[in-house]
Amino acid sequence: MDQPQGSAFARPLAPAVVSELREVLGGRLQLSEAIRQQHGSCEAHFETMPPDAVAFPHSTEETARLVQICARHAIPVIPYGAGSSLEGQVVATTGGLCIDLSEMNRIVAVHAADLDCTVQAGVTREQLNEYLRDQGLFFPIDPGANATIGGMAATRASGTNAVRYGTMRDAVLSLTAVMPDGRIVRTARRARKSSAGYDLTRLLIGSEGTLGIITEVTLRLHGIPDAISSAVCAFDTLQGAVDTVITAIQLGVPVARIELVDEVGIGAINSYAKLDLEEKPTLFFEFHGTKASVDEQVEIVREIAIDLGGGEFVWSNLSEERSRLWKARHQAYYAGLSLRPGSTGWATDVCVPISRLADCILETRADLDTTQIPTPIVGHVGDGNFHVLFVLDPASEEEAAEAARLNDRLVARALAMDGTCTGEHGIGLGKQQWLIEEHGPGVDIMRLIKRALDPGNLFNPGKIFAMP
Amino acid sequence: MDQPQGSAFARPLAPAVVSELREVLGGRLQLSEAIRQQHGSCEAHFETMPPDAVAFPHSTEETARLVQICARHAIPVIPYGAGSSLEGQVVATTGGLCIDLSEMNRIVAVHAADLDCTVQAGVTREQLNEYLRDQGLFFPIDPGANATIGGMAATRASGTNAVRYGTMRDAVLSLTAVMPDGRIVRTARRARKSSAGYDLTRLLIGSEGTLGIITEVTLRLHGIPDAISSAVCAFDTLQGAVDTVITAIQLGVPVARIELVDEVGIGAINSYAKLDLEEKPTLFFEFHGTKASVDEQVEIVREIAIDLGGGEFVWSNLSEERSRLWKARHQAYYAGLSLRPGSTGWATDVCVPISRLADCILETRADLDTTQIPTPIVGHVGDGNFHVLFVLDPASEEEAAEAARLNDRLVARALAMDGTCTGEHGIGLGKQQWLIEEHGPGVDIMRLIKRALDPGNLFNPGKIFAMP
Repeated sequence: MDQPQGSAFARPLAPAVVSELREVLGGRLQLSEAIRQQHGSCEAHFETMPPDAVAFPHSTEETARLVQICARHAIPVIPYGAGSSLEGQVVATTGGLCIDLSEMNRIVAVHAADLDCTVQAGVTREQLNEYLRDQGLFFPIDPGANATIGGMAATRASGTNAVRYGTMRDAVLSLTAVMPDGRIVRTARRARKSSAGYDLTRLLIGSEGTLGIITEVTLRLHGIPDAISSAVCAFDTLQGAVDTVITAIQLGVPVARIELVDEVGIGAINSYAKLDLEEKPTLFFEFHGTKASVDEQVEIVREIAIDLGGGEFVWSNLSEERSRLWKARHQAYYAGLSLRPGSTGWATDVCVPISRLADCILETRADLDTTQIPTPIVGHVGDGNFHVLFVLDPASEEEAAEAARLNDRLVARALAMDGTCTGEHGIGLGKQQWLIEEHGPGVDIMRLIKRALDPGNLFNPGKIFAMP
Repeated sequence: MDQPQGSAFARPLAPAVVSELREVLGGRLQLSEAIRQQHGSCEAHFETMPPDAVAFPHSTEETARLVQICARHAIPVIPYGAGSSLEGQVVATTGGLCIDLSEMNRIVAVHAADLDCTVQAGVTREQLNEYLRDQGLFFPIDPGANATIGGMAATRASGTNAVRYGTMRDAVLSLTAVMPDGRIVRTARRARKSSAGYDLTRLLIGSEGTLGIITEVTLRLHGIPDAISSAVCAFDTLQGAVDTVITAIQLGVPVARIELVDEVGIGAINSYAKLDLEEKPTLFFEFHGTKASVDEQVEIVREIAIDLGGGEFVWSNLSEERSRLWKARHQAYYAGLSLRPGSTGWATDVCVPISRLADCILETRADLDTTQIPTPIVGHVGDGNFHVLFVLDPASEEEAAEAARLNDRLVARALAMDGTCTGEHGIGLGKQQWLIEEHGPGVDIMRLIKRALDPGNLFNPGKIFAMP
């Protein structure tokens, strides 16, 4: 394998820089090998490349001072949240200073009447929902991992609730960010909507740390619904399952979550959790609303499902029973990994127009079935978004190469269907050639923006696209 | 009054340029005084400044060729849709070529299963909804005027349905645009969501023609709801009306429209339409859903309104009666103008967090009541967005100056409440100093982006902000 161009080997910062950074942070600048290694690795198949140092700022102002020091000395800056990104977003390909925002975990304000709150970037979504529960409020975006809000904004994350509540693009009202020149920008006020100038909020959402370091986020919240029901239904055909979703959405049923697990995924769950589910494409639903509205939603979807070849439509509005119904879905990732003890997972993601979803999954399944690698499919089908989990032998370079080939064919298939190479994981290091395929000259426009805002190419360099 | 710096006086294009443009357009290049005047004026209080010529392209490719010619000769380019913008967005402050997209009015594709469609930029929202009706679909964004979809995207328009269906920011899946260097960019695929690179779609939405000329738009659609109910309720106090809205939204009632007309506006409507409504702050509601869900929504909101000092809650689910109930709201603009025959209207707009809306409107009402100028207030209250209509004597410079002072105080009040200087009209020429007040260093970031994408400052120059 080629030598990585970056700092896979220790390359300490100049002592003068360290002492400048220490002036800001004191003991909150870490240089130890263990901490650097941890911050240069991610939950995916990318090689670990540690940063030269890790900073733990406590405020936007401290972060700005760090960025100013790095700008003066031309040191790369990599923001870090929970480290749960999946496309290598935190790997320090050219060394530099990792800014770990996890100690910026203060909930700054909750405005219940406005259904919004402002949090520091290091607050995690579970921490936030814990905090909000007593006020009858919740933050709906749920990517699975207990990610930080800042990291979720930076990668434009979404997850199971997006079909009803949208993605981070929709959930964020305003951001505070430190720009590459060290200036602090607040991108918007707290109004629900604005036509005042360029949408800097949306420009930073999904920019993966390449344009600004997000330090505070103002989020839209929702009232915890009066009633919640869950349902599970197995289908004879994938087409029947997807058509159920399409019909429900066209009828305007405001389903909160609609998740698909394919027959391979259900098989994995059965052996992992000692269940006896039918090994068929299965939909998991969650409905939010008033009691009457939820009952009506369940009834409408149940009728659609029966018409389209669904089996027994098992549902419940009781909390414990609901958890039991969804347990299989929540275990899908670990169930997948358990197919091969000692395996590592590589989760990829694409998103297509929902009319093409059944075709895309069926063609993908057929392609995946040509390999011995276990490959359960899980999807946020209301959005046309699905994941393949490659369950890999970590010692096998052949398997890694085969997964890469299958992944390439998957992405090419999604693009050919007018879909995107990533619905929610982002580009990072892993999908740069596909970004170019997807956006063509749009990538040049992105590069012009990057160069204008970060002329030194110091903010998370090498991510999303290379700068020539 | 100072001489305008721009082309208020004819400044014909060089004959060589005209013949290059004619090669692309033939007779669709217009140089007549009448057409230039019409394209240099807007539905607002800004001085007319005509472009030097008006082009009527029929395709994205033609538009790109026009832009390439203009780039070579350093000629400003101003895109034009229906001319319904309110902050002077189409005024040709430095002359140049106006590109009128109204002949690009083809509905390119409707994907019913995906609930989306692609249209050329000159399609109007009424034309689109007419076309979609037979398929049981509709496009919800309704800014009042029969604007073009391209113009609505360019100003990040919204309107009465935004509380439920969002703004153009949410409604647009993808754009095709001609960039200042003449390149054609499609900003996204047709997938519902994507994390692939910078959000060029949202960057162009609200950029008012300064970064790209939008030529095609892919829009999210919605199924026409099974049932629609409308309701009207007058309140003793504005606070009671606003608290009704806040409570309904907190409870998660998915109201489709919630409009406020204040007592001055109701007075105007009474004399204009020979009605006898109580001259009190009045809410107009529209509910969408299944019949059962709509009935439940009406009942919940009725109870909230009664608790909070609402009077009789008049509602109907019959089409004719619904139209009658909403007629007053729809006539608000012309009713306002009718307060003074021969007057011109200046409609301004701000948006604040909804918890501050009652304060903001009450303080504004008190301030407006110090003047003789009629000033009805109309608001999209679910979003915290409201408009003041200054009903002005067109001959009076004093009144124009007084309206400007009142408008300045209104915007300052909204900003002090963490609101925005414009919820949906945009910046154009009218609110540039307020953009700076609102965004501070964010405006420098916007200028860096503008310079990177349009180094010659040829795309709608002078709009949103000045380029130093």
